[in-house]
Amino acid sequence: MEGNEIVNVRLGEGEGSVVLLDQTQLPNRVEYVTVTELPQMVEAIRSLRVRGAPAIGIFAGYCLYVLARQLAEKGAEGPAFQKELERQRTVLVNARPTAVNLAWAVERLIRRSAALSGAHIGEIVSALGEECRLIRREDEEMCRKIAEYGLSLVKPGDGILTHCNAGPLATSKYGTALGPILLGKERGIPLKVYADETRPLLQGARLTAWELQRSGVDVTLICDNMASMVMKNGFVQACFVGCDRVAANGDTANKIGTSGVAILAKHYGVPFYVLGPTSTIDLSCPDGEHIPIEMRDGEEIRSLWYREPMAPAGVKCYNPAFDVTDHTLISGIVTEKGICRPPYTASLKRLFK
Amino acid sequence: MEGNEIVNVRLGEGEGSVVLLDQTQLPNRVEYVTVTELPQMVEAIRSLRVRGAPAIGIFAGYCLYVLARQLAEKGAEGPAFQKELERQRTVLVNARPTAVNLAWAVERLIRRSAALSGAHIGEIVSALGEECRLIRREDEEMCRKIAEYGLSLVKPGDGILTHCNAGPLATSKYGTALGPILLGKERGIPLKVYADETRPLLQGARLTAWELQRSGVDVTLICDNMASMVMKNGFVQACFVGCDRVAANGDTANKIGTSGVAILAKHYGVPFYVLGPTSTIDLSCPDGEHIPIEMRDGEEIRSLWYREPMAPAGVKCYNPAFDVTDHTLISGIVTEKGICRPPYTASLKRLFK
Repeated sequence: MEGNEIVNVRLGEGEGSVVLLDQTQLPNRVEYVTVTELPQMVEAIRSLRVRGAPAIGIFAGYCLYVLARQLAEKGAEGPAFQKELERQRTVLVNARPTAVNLAWAVERLIRRSAALSGAHIGEIVSALGEECRLIRREDEEMCRKIAEYGLSLVKPGDGILTHCNAGPLATSKYGTALGPILLGKERGIPLKVYADETRPLLQGARLTAWELQRSGVDVTLICDNMASMVMKNGFVQACFVGCDRVAANGDTANKIGTSGVAILAKHYGVPFYVLGPTSTIDLSCPDGEHIPIEMRDGEEIRSLWYREPMAPAGVKCYNPAFDVTDHTLISGIVTEKGICRPPYTASLKRLFK
Repeated sequence: MEGNEIVNVRLGEGEGSVVLLDQTQLPNRVEYVTVTELPQMVEAIRSLRVRGAPAIGIFAGYCLYVLARQLAEKGAEGPAFQKELERQRTVLVNARPTAVNLAWAVERLIRRSAALSGAHIGEIVSALGEECRLIRREDEEMCRKIAEYGLSLVKPGDGILTHCNAGPLATSKYGTALGPILLGKERGIPLKVYADETRPLLQGARLTAWELQRSGVDVTLICDNMASMVMKNGFVQACFVGCDRVAANGDTANKIGTSGVAILAKHYGVPFYVLGPTSTIDLSCPDGEHIPIEMRDGEEIRSLWYREPMAPAGVKCYNPAFDVTDHTLISGIVTEKGICRPPYTASLKRLFK
């Protein structure tokens, strides 16, 4: 931790371990967990102690590097080293098979190691350390660029509504949707944030409110169903949300409730922006109809977090984890390469040229 | 309780007490509380053991009747009886001074008693018993008529989205927004209900889901932020909500989140109906701008119900208890005297001719 900055994952002392801020304990306890063995690493991912696609990628990179050091210390080298590293990679990836960034990050280390197959084991391990630090630095750089572009969309004193958590906890330094707000804070540009609590998992209440409060940002927590009043009262001049997947036509999958915020924003004439890295844009996916939506256990609605269940036992629940916001509701998609405007079919394609 | 019917308040054995279903214990415990003394009655209202404007009115009527019987048993009569009854009325009304139906109900008993001032005390007490039973019967009749009109707006197999709780627990037999659904159930007309959990007080999860499940209605609980997906998927053909106050132009105050549901409904082309008795229509209030909105403690968002707080200590919260739905978003206002359609300035006025 540097000053007031939130560091969600980092290498431990002597680079023999990975230290992570246990997000399941927030906002009540700031607890750091140190993991050194593969099963602990898998458990940390599975139980959401570390969450947010970019953060999981960074964490997995650090993990594989720490495991590579252990292998080298035990005398492994050559093909045996590479084979064991690949086995560990697979175990890590299977901890959350749908997390694209996880596979992407560990794959970078595997490729780096393979490319150095003839080299001394010390050289390989050193390169892996470099690679996993690079993954973090690249993410910070990506977040900083998104923050810069996002900040150009608002003016001092503006209110911003956000949904779920797309801040430093979910990424590296700035986050995506929260990036412009935190960068604005650094530069003395005051912005007021209204954070949806984001049922059922309460990422807005537990994580967004926590990291903004901790950073000294003026944040007000609301229940999801209060966003309409907040917009009607003129409290916010823009909505900033993250994204899990953007289709070629601009349709955007993000945390459940995002599409409702976008519809309210359109009704009240508040611009609605999606912020995320170009790695989230999937040009092979034509539109939102082609994005599968994960359905989760109704117990998350009925009883999770509560002292006792808050709904009748056995009552049916509908609990989609994400929804798709129609591209017609989106004022702009803010990436590290610039801001895309409608028509998205053209503007998103241009990013990849 | 008759069969599966929910009776929220009733006179106890020998009419010497009032028995109420303790709504604060739902959905986990069906507990009846018997009250005989004024302080217990006040506590039951204050702590929301009985809630819903019509239900509070019915309860208060029963209470004042039980208190009148006690006075008569102690030998009170004439002006001394009336004076003590009026003192008890004032204590009851002050338990929740903003609850219009509470004052309205006990006032009816006071007037009835005053009108019989020369009569034998036994006759007066008997008339008060009649009056409080009449209040309940009138409410049942009002709910039944609203249910009939509401049922005419849907067809078998339709899905209906509702917000908060405007069912039997909040009124007498059928409720208002849930009336058409329960009447439909009686008549073998299948309707599917999607119930918003309604943060922060969870009336949808705790009460609506409970009473619909208990009545054998096909009910699915959702978080408030899932209503957009439910409408997008075509799961619902209408929205039915209750109301706390309807202005002369049709602007409607109801539980926080209602206006957001109405905006989503308009976006997806789903008709949005408000159901309530004509006593909720306030022609002296020109529009929603003139309806004061109660602001409540942020702790309801941060920590109520939870095993531990789910937001950082001291984080600001914005917690309005109600919002106002613009009349342009409302497809119809369903009362016991018929269905009003836009323009509401004319159609609402006609109800009172």
